[in-house]
Amino acid sequence: MSEVVTQNRRRGGRVARQAIRSAPLTEETRAIHPGLESGNFKVLSDLQIKRIHTAVLDVLENIGLADAIPSCIDVITAAGGVLKDNGRLTFPRALVEDMLTKVNRNVVLYGQDPKHDMELTGRKTYFGTAGAAVHMVDAQTGDYRESTTQDLYDIARQVDKLDNIHFFQRSVVCRDLPDPFDMDFHTCYASVSGTTKHVGSSWVEVDHFEKSLEMLHMIAGGEKKWRERPFVSMSNCFVVPPLKFAEDACKCLEASVRGGMPVLLLAAGQAGATSPASLAGAVVQETAEVLAGLCYVNAIEPGAPAIFGTWPFVSDLRTGAMSGGSGEQALLVAACAQMGEFYDLPTGVPSGMCDSKVPDYQAGAEKGYNHAITGNSGTNLVYESAGMHASLLGFCMESLVLDNDTIGSVLRTVRGIEVNEDTLSLEAIRSVCEEGPGHYLGSDQTLSVMQSEYFYPETGERSSPNEWDEKGKPTALSIATEIVKDTMANHHPRHISEELDREIRQKFDIKLPRALMSKSVNN
Amino acid sequence: MSEVVTQNRRRGGRVARQAIRSAPLTEETRAIHPGLESGNFKVLSDLQIKRIHTAVLDVLENIGLADAIPSCIDVITAAGGVLKDNGRLTFPRALVEDMLTKVNRNVVLYGQDPKHDMELTGRKTYFGTAGAAVHMVDAQTGDYRESTTQDLYDIARQVDKLDNIHFFQRSVVCRDLPDPFDMDFHTCYASVSGTTKHVGSSWVEVDHFEKSLEMLHMIAGGEKKWRERPFVSMSNCFVVPPLKFAEDACKCLEASVRGGMPVLLLAAGQAGATSPASLAGAVVQETAEVLAGLCYVNAIEPGAPAIFGTWPFVSDLRTGAMSGGSGEQALLVAACAQMGEFYDLPTGVPSGMCDSKVPDYQAGAEKGYNHAITGNSGTNLVYESAGMHASLLGFCMESLVLDNDTIGSVLRTVRGIEVNEDTLSLEAIRSVCEEGPGHYLGSDQTLSVMQSEYFYPETGERSSPNEWDEKGKPTALSIATEIVKDTMANHHPRHISEELDREIRQKFDIKLPRALMSKSVNN
Repeated sequence: MSEVVTQNRRRGGRVARQAIRSAPLTEETRAIHPGLESGNFKVLSDLQIKRIHTAVLDVLENIGLADAIPSCIDVITAAGGVLKDNGRLTFPRALVEDMLTKVNRNVVLYGQDPKHDMELTGRKTYFGTAGAAVHMVDAQTGDYRESTTQDLYDIARQVDKLDNIHFFQRSVVCRDLPDPFDMDFHTCYASVSGTTKHVGSSWVEVDHFEKSLEMLHMIAGGEKKWRERPFVSMSNCFVVPPLKFAEDACKCLEASVRGGMPVLLLAAGQAGATSPASLAGAVVQETAEVLAGLCYVNAIEPGAPAIFGTWPFVSDLRTGAMSGGSGEQALLVAACAQMGEFYDLPTGVPSGMCDSKVPDYQAGAEKGYNHAITGNSGTNLVYESAGMHASLLGFCMESLVLDNDTIGSVLRTVRGIEVNEDTLSLEAIRSVCEEGPGHYLGSDQTLSVMQSEYFYPETGERSSPNEWDEKGKPTALSIATEIVKDTMANHHPRHISEELDREIRQKFDIKLPRALMSKSVNN
Repeated sequence: MSEVVTQNRRRGGRVARQAIRSAPLTEETRAIHPGLESGNFKVLSDLQIKRIHTAVLDVLENIGLADAIPSCIDVITAAGGVLKDNGRLTFPRALVEDMLTKVNRNVVLYGQDPKHDMELTGRKTYFGTAGAAVHMVDAQTGDYRESTTQDLYDIARQVDKLDNIHFFQRSVVCRDLPDPFDMDFHTCYASVSGTTKHVGSSWVEVDHFEKSLEMLHMIAGGEKKWRERPFVSMSNCFVVPPLKFAEDACKCLEASVRGGMPVLLLAAGQAGATSPASLAGAVVQETAEVLAGLCYVNAIEPGAPAIFGTWPFVSDLRTGAMSGGSGEQALLVAACAQMGEFYDLPTGVPSGMCDSKVPDYQAGAEKGYNHAITGNSGTNLVYESAGMHASLLGFCMESLVLDNDTIGSVLRTVRGIEVNEDTLSLEAIRSVCEEGPGHYLGSDQTLSVMQSEYFYPETGERSSPNEWDEKGKPTALSIATEIVKDTMANHHPRHISEELDREIRQKFDIKLPRALMSKSVNN
């Protein structure tokens, strides 16, 4: 084999290479783009899906959820739900089926810049971040330190620059802000200030949310404009698995629906701890929980934008600790995504929550196989897809850039292969074989598809061992480190004008100094 | 989210953990095993497969292959093939369809130890190595040095110990043996001496092969026993893409068929260089080439064991260099595997040929997504799956061990999810929710599936950041390094007895000193 390889490398075809290198890479000719149609990986058969669906209905009708707040009980019982003697709120089959007819299946998650809008129709797939890590990881030393508001803002800026990270859900906790209101408010402020992509955030109390919404109205140019294009969604853990409502989160959920903010209905059962260790059982519980949330949202307001957020996690049963990088994780998520497809719901699942503490081989492998499976599962949104380490406890800026490339390669697999008269290449094969030159380097077809068929990673190191040695052995990580440095020094988003920011600061006590948000702008 | 995670970690459930840790891990209860049924990833639709098939028949019937040797022309024309005026040997549709009825669809690749036998029926999937790297990679420094016979033997020994590497195709070139006969013969000798798993090897001339076969007869206990359980297959590049036969390789192919050795019919076109840059076209050419080889084998001897070895490679079109780690690589391989499934052929494709020079993030990611796609594609054999770097130019021992774990996780995804009354877990969910304790830690179901549902990687570092720091920040690589050291010091296969080895050494000039093969046995 190595002879073949060496030979091919020698016949590089200088003319072809130069033509390729000098060609511009426009958006239209890129091999990948946001919203590629996904779904080529099917872990569940149709029969398995139906059996899970039947079990889900059984759970909702007979077991139901505990700890519903009065307003939840009101809307669900009004819609046909039953509060049982044991205090559990149950969802009869007819109620669930009824609510599934009311669901909004044309959810758009807007960006502040419309070019980042994401249409969650069909099986269009988008990748983004999520949270919430409590540490920043030093990629070189592996040291973990507490994450800050400035970190969150800087991550948003880096996300703003990465082609394959399509949305930004707040990735780290602002641990420099011990007051819960400050934390919630600034999480939203730093995120929307750092990127024009769609933002996901979360709030622990309704009044934190409402103050943030006031700020969002200001940025949008008034409530009406906000409601036309809500560019922030709420990540909402309305359920504490197994099958218990979370009081404060439910209040926030209701506020989100009233405020016109799309809500990510997030159930994060950990198999073997807070959901069944049996994978099929974990899928059943996840699906039941999120469907309960979907009924809740649509009972409040039919068609309110909501995302089927099945986030099944995995325990390493030897220790009880979460294992976000495992193969079981990929399976659970892919199965849940198929359930979302079965119900034809806007669906969002997590992937890339590697167990490794640093951007090493293990991190790459765990992210690689999880993204390949999840990206091809038919989910609309892939959360947690970049920067995460230690099963969500750490965030690494360099990993964000590395993961952007891994996602790019995975998106290329999502796109698949086009088969038509041109791509079948019969004439190209015939002419090369019968008329020469006996290879395809520099052929018209090769030059014409060099950008449309192939994705070129920014950090992917593809030189030969000799060239690599001569260059000083650069690694993907060393290349990513330079990219981060460049972004931090040079990318200072200005979509929120200085004037508007001044108004926000007059109204709210913003603790992220304006100077720090542009400290390097004149460097 | 982080709150959920932290909470779950705290409720670890000491009793459950201890029970789990002390339970033995037997073969029957392992979550994964060799030969799992694959095929949940389908990049091609049925219609696309048919269009490719039609194009393949067109290529074979109208373009055919150049440079057929006389014996090949004889058997193919006798079966209905046509030698055209331009010297190309063409394969009419009827010939191809006829040969497809004669193919051996029950190929078994035997191990010297029957526990390693691999049945290539249906879509049973096995992972193994292949070659042939010309360098060994120092995992710590990234230094590349020429590979030797001793390296090959040591790699075989390490493969012998790894659960998820199911076969050993010779992975490196014995560059200390400049004589081509010595190289071919010792490649075979070192491989079969180092492991009882099935071995793949290659030969550049027929007499090298025949001498090696004499040795294999000795090891088997005579030719008859060899023919009953041939434990070595021939990796054969009978075609030089695009669509040219390779003279010496064809002679070896014929010798392999006569000698009762299964043959891997390997076409390794590099898209954009030696096959079309358009992915669909590359699949067409690959499939046509390997089907030509399959006709050749079955025209010589109907039902001779052969493997549909579509090995499509990718060029980085900016440089012409091979890019084995790309997403396009995964797509091409998955499509070819589906063609193999369409014809119901024993199929073998490559995966894991990462571009990175060292076992870093890039290597992990490239191997991760390629293995996830390829492993789920329905191929029977995944070659090149462990140890490879620099698009097949380098081999790293530590990566072999790391990749064994990546493959393990991917195999877990291949197995999928079982859905039945037990796994749906309705009773477990009900009792935990309605009767307590409100979590699944330590429940009967959790304990009973801890081994059967979950794969535990040897090198996967899953501790929390704090625990990890206390342990001195071990990485998957540092753990793999220890495993390699231990194997090298302690694992000295003895399946070829000292007496038999002495007989082999009397008959052949073995250049790998016996002492070196067991140098550390008494340490």
